[in-house]
Amino acid sequence: MADNRGLVIVFTGNGKGKTTAALGMALRAWGQGMKILVLQFIKGGWVYGELLASGKLAGFEIRQLGEGFIREGGKDAEVHKQAARKALEEARGEITSGRWDMVILDEIVYALGYNLFEEQELLDLISLKPPELHLVLTGRGAPRSLIDRADLVTEMKEVKHPYRQGMKAQKGVEF
Amino acid sequence: MADNRGLVIVFTGNGKGKTTAALGMALRAWGQGMKILVLQFIKGGWVYGELLASGKLAGFEIRQLGEGFIREGGKDAEVHKQAARKALEEARGEITSGRWDMVILDEIVYALGYNLFEEQELLDLISLKPPELHLVLTGRGAPRSLIDRADLVTEMKEVKHPYRQGMKAQKGVEF
Repeated sequence: MADNRGLVIVFTGNGKGKTTAALGMALRAWGQGMKILVLQFIKGGWVYGELLASGKLAGFEIRQLGEGFIREGGKDAEVHKQAARKALEEARGEITSGRWDMVILDEIVYALGYNLFEEQELLDLISLKPPELHLVLTGRGAPRSLIDRADLVTEMKEVKHPYRQGMKAQKGVEF
Repeated sequence: MADNRGLVIVFTGNGKGKTTAALGMALRAWGQGMKILVLQFIKGGWVYGELLASGKLAGFEIRQLGEGFIREGGKDAEVHKQAARKALEEARGEITSGRWDMVILDEIVYALGYNLFEEQELLDLISLKPPELHLVLTGRGAPRSLIDRADLVTEMKEVKHPYRQGMKAQKGVEF
């Protein structure tokens, strides 16, 4: 029951708000003077509001590592696997670097769900965490082993989504 | 199906991440150059990481309007009701002011759940929204009428929480 224990936090589920909640957590931690790194395991190649924001905030860095979302007829699985493996490697280095107070591994659980790496590799990565570091993991489909390892797990459940009603993605909300 | 339609977004449920997701949404929108106002219907008197952060971000303002969380043996219900009524009034003014691209009414749904005002008053407030404004509402227990009115609803479901394991709230995560 140490007072400054870093938590392992998971945002999972099929609803909106996983990455968004992680960003909010980053903003809150940044407000407390913490240094935050976000490694995006999936969203390669996009320009997001959060990238624009982090560019303006000292001590808050976002790196896009992965390829785009995996679709039928999209890039070869091997391309995704290689990108995910490189991302894991980078995550290991940063988690153990002592440079950050919070590291967010965005969509790493989604990448795991597509078998871009093994469940055990993710658990091994978490075990590298220094005690005081907050580690945040997002993505749908968190496996039991991750939930068991985590301190705080929230499932985002989609109740209603505008895409279902034919509405387009909105600037400042979706991207 | 306009391209710049402002959405009504609800984060509800019993899990962590409702306010946090709203903050992440604020950060994303801020990154896009939008002007954001957060009105906190409940969290009076606390100092949060998000307050510290917003103080550093131009065009991102947070105002604490409500009293603290409602507890048995706490402040008189009438005190909470008056604070909520004033907060609603301020929300009406700001939503129609044209000054903001996104207004976040944090914990307004929680306040509604404690009958600090009527469901119809909340729906009337939403109906004042200019078409292009994004309106974000958070708090557990969103009623059917609000879900019907909203464009995007996510329920945050608690899967695992560190308090249950005797861990204290952590700086940068909980506050």
